[in-house]
Amino acid sequence: MEKMDIVLGKEKTPLVFKNARVLNVYTKEWERTDIAVKDGQILGTGKYDGDREIDCENRYIVPGFIDTHLHLESTLVHPKYLITEAAKTGTTTFIVDPHEAANVSGTDGIQFILDETEDVMASCFIMLPSCVPCIPGEQSGAQLRAEDLAPFLSHERVLGLGEVMDCRSVFEGAEEMMEKLRLFENKPKDGHNTGLSEHELNAYRLAGIQTNHEMTTYEDAKKEISKGFYCHIREGSAARNLKDIVRGIVEDKGSTRFYTFCTDDKHIHDILEEGHISHSIRKAIGLGIPPEEAYQMASLNGAICYGLNKKGAIAPGKDADLVLLKDPKKVIIDEVYHQGKKVEGNPVIGPTPENLLQTVHLGEFTVDHLKDVDCDDIMVLIPDQLLTKRIPYEEGDHGHLNKILLAERHGKTGDIGLGWVQGYGIKNGALATSVSHDNHNIIAIGDNDLDIYQGIRHLEKTGGGYVLVEKGKIVGSLPLEIMGLMTNESYEKVNRTLSRMKEKAHQMGIPRNIEPFILPSFLALTVIPEIRISSKGMVIVK
Amino acid sequence: MEKMDIVLGKEKTPLVFKNARVLNVYTKEWERTDIAVKDGQILGTGKYDGDREIDCENRYIVPGFIDTHLHLESTLVHPKYLITEAAKTGTTTFIVDPHEAANVSGTDGIQFILDETEDVMASCFIMLPSCVPCIPGEQSGAQLRAEDLAPFLSHERVLGLGEVMDCRSVFEGAEEMMEKLRLFENKPKDGHNTGLSEHELNAYRLAGIQTNHEMTTYEDAKKEISKGFYCHIREGSAARNLKDIVRGIVEDKGSTRFYTFCTDDKHIHDILEEGHISHSIRKAIGLGIPPEEAYQMASLNGAICYGLNKKGAIAPGKDADLVLLKDPKKVIIDEVYHQGKKVEGNPVIGPTPENLLQTVHLGEFTVDHLKDVDCDDIMVLIPDQLLTKRIPYEEGDHGHLNKILLAERHGKTGDIGLGWVQGYGIKNGALATSVSHDNHNIIAIGDNDLDIYQGIRHLEKTGGGYVLVEKGKIVGSLPLEIMGLMTNESYEKVNRTLSRMKEKAHQMGIPRNIEPFILPSFLALTVIPEIRISSKGMVIVK
Repeated sequence: MEKMDIVLGKEKTPLVFKNARVLNVYTKEWERTDIAVKDGQILGTGKYDGDREIDCENRYIVPGFIDTHLHLESTLVHPKYLITEAAKTGTTTFIVDPHEAANVSGTDGIQFILDETEDVMASCFIMLPSCVPCIPGEQSGAQLRAEDLAPFLSHERVLGLGEVMDCRSVFEGAEEMMEKLRLFENKPKDGHNTGLSEHELNAYRLAGIQTNHEMTTYEDAKKEISKGFYCHIREGSAARNLKDIVRGIVEDKGSTRFYTFCTDDKHIHDILEEGHISHSIRKAIGLGIPPEEAYQMASLNGAICYGLNKKGAIAPGKDADLVLLKDPKKVIIDEVYHQGKKVEGNPVIGPTPENLLQTVHLGEFTVDHLKDVDCDDIMVLIPDQLLTKRIPYEEGDHGHLNKILLAERHGKTGDIGLGWVQGYGIKNGALATSVSHDNHNIIAIGDNDLDIYQGIRHLEKTGGGYVLVEKGKIVGSLPLEIMGLMTNESYEKVNRTLSRMKEKAHQMGIPRNIEPFILPSFLALTVIPEIRISSKGMVIVK
Repeated sequence: MEKMDIVLGKEKTPLVFKNARVLNVYTKEWERTDIAVKDGQILGTGKYDGDREIDCENRYIVPGFIDTHLHLESTLVHPKYLITEAAKTGTTTFIVDPHEAANVSGTDGIQFILDETEDVMASCFIMLPSCVPCIPGEQSGAQLRAEDLAPFLSHERVLGLGEVMDCRSVFEGAEEMMEKLRLFENKPKDGHNTGLSEHELNAYRLAGIQTNHEMTTYEDAKKEISKGFYCHIREGSAARNLKDIVRGIVEDKGSTRFYTFCTDDKHIHDILEEGHISHSIRKAIGLGIPPEEAYQMASLNGAICYGLNKKGAIAPGKDADLVLLKDPKKVIIDEVYHQGKKVEGNPVIGPTPENLLQTVHLGEFTVDHLKDVDCDDIMVLIPDQLLTKRIPYEEGDHGHLNKILLAERHGKTGDIGLGWVQGYGIKNGALATSVSHDNHNIIAIGDNDLDIYQGIRHLEKTGGGYVLVEKGKIVGSLPLEIMGLMTNESYEKVNRTLSRMKEKAHQMGIPRNIEPFILPSFLALTVIPEIRISSKGMVIVK
């Protein structure tokens, strides 16, 4: 009842943001008002007196931003670093899919992400990975069935089912997929699709999937919205779809009601450079979305989409997630509050659970096993793209070829697949990494078997990471001891190490228009055309 | 999997609406498309072939309308009649609050409404009455506590908590109210308020209440929406708030996202005359709301508000609730389909449960008990209004006064409250009725004790209803045998009887600008100013 007495003005409020220009995302209007806060919750707006008052006379306040879809693992550092840096730029709610962690360590990986997002300066909700492995038959570290996901459903921060990328299983009614869809029947289910026909889109929506973040054009986005999907406009480090979609909305004078913003994968480096969801808002405003609407897309829309009743607006009963701005049009952020507490400082990282360390378990093999390559096609890299081409191995002179290899590392089959790649250009050495979407086996590329072998064996010792070997010597190493995906080291240190290794890699012959580390991490992702490497050898992707 | 094969176009669809202009309420655009339907569910839009095809070449199709708040009991006839007639005008979803039934028969009344809305030509969802009696201390037929409502929560058509009209209990944190709010913590909770201060509105929203249908001005509606409420724009038989609110939206160029339509109380006579939610849509279009948006307000907005995932749009997975129009701007309805079945014919009414019959249980009293009136004020009726005025009894000549009385009829206290009323004007007789909001005790008005007494005793025999007595003779009687609120007789017969009785009532002296039956039914509603009758005597309402 104390709360009621305070909101009714009978008692003083513990904390009041005084006299700000506050964006009401329901009416899309700015109101000159106080915000009364107690225990991290907004009690009301209007006139209030506080035990503690924060003067906001010259500031604007908007609701904390929501990233409606992201993976925390892809920044190489501990999740708390990314959350902290993104929260400082106004993102106070994260809808997280621990897809990579689950592909390596299964439910332990999910539990890790749940635990490490508990005590942070933001609210993190979890969508449980639906496709582990991402396609039936992939040699990932775990296989998650409905019964594996079920125990997580009672967790208060678990919202629903993560991106259902295995569309085929949905259309074919594959039993495992059906079990998952049934388990999450009345919960949000995220999608992940491109290029579906109208009938397939109907089927996908009929299965209860209600979002997509893979739209790249306004036409696609509008088509999916017309079927009842939400469009999470993605603007991350690599995939940047905002401009095309938002330009379409503006030209078409379309409604923004079913659009939200997400990053999917955005690295700390880019967050520090340009912001997080704040960058999406700024860009959308620049393209012609009225600021009030851009902030609405970044807050209320996502909250409604996921039924987050305590998020998305500055109104009674909502969490006091507040972004204080100096300039709302330019999205110049002054301070950020999450549940009434100022977002500041650095996170405290605790020890990593033992079962997530030393996760590289290779089969028995010697350097001789890497000798004989049996493949009909060569993988050809295309500068600045994730796509690859293939050319027949027989045809003529292929210039400088590298050997490419994928070694199952989850201690299951010990399979090693071999092939040839053109365009990577590494000489007198090899690169190896355990970051290899989505199964995260060991991928290695080199021009001699000894260096390749040494690189792989090095990763076995560090528990994964990135390694560069030159003429039998380790010339660069970034251990990623957590599941072979992340490290507890600071972002700054990781960045320094990677920069040095990157420069060294280019010196070893990798062209400047090829990203020496990120590109290889995608060469085993057997959903991107035209040719990939698997633990069974080269595969052609249609 | 059959469904998947059909939606993917591999198999023929059982039912296809061919080639209509279909309103997409997500994009607010008209699409030329087929609608594929199986087992009452929309599988998809696009091109489909059907075993059965309905040609819609010259017709428009919009999603079935949602009435976001109504009471079924106030039409005097069985709920199925109202639902049928309203469904024929396009309302295919009803969000029903069985408040009147609950006030008379408690949980039995709620169960009756649940049972009788099961097998109908529309989808009926129930909001459980939160305030029975409407204010603590009222002598209603039942008192519903949280524990009485709890067993209904598992019913699939029960959505949440009905209109919380007892705002004071919310603000004061009255334990009974808190228990109900806790019980419905994560469910929709409807409001009912007027004239709250900004602090009170904050408190009301903080309590989790999220809708209101009592707004009469745009200013109020916008204020509440800015706090996070939905505004259900009411357009019923008596209360008609649409014009003022919609005019405000249009002038202000306001967003309609948080507005829906409701009727609250709309009589069959008016439904047949002008439509139901269809009338609200037509009126909104007439006032300047674009048709596409008016239909969106009538469908998608309400579905989102109440989390009705299968309602609100023509899209994969939604119920096939379709309104076929000849003219969308004029809302000229051709056919209506509910879950793929055409709405037509008349309902079949089964026998009424015994426990809802013979519900008038008066105390022991004789005509002598009605003799002595002890009150300081006279109730003065105001033509065409529900409001009353009061004047002191002492002051001068009061002209023709009637005696007014409220007799507890639920077999609890047997209390009878007496007073004087000016302006009703009945001579040589009396009117009595068991329809008396919200406690539904017996209200009677007359100019002589004998006729009043006879009227009351007559209702005891019929189990309630309306009765008109003149000089010791029953000159008109409408038995409402179900809880004293409704009858199983047809609407037509009820209407004929009421018309005759109305004419007779006017002949007996009731002025033409006073509704002889509806007005008395509100004279015991102790929340409307300025003076009312209770079973304890006259009460002043601030």
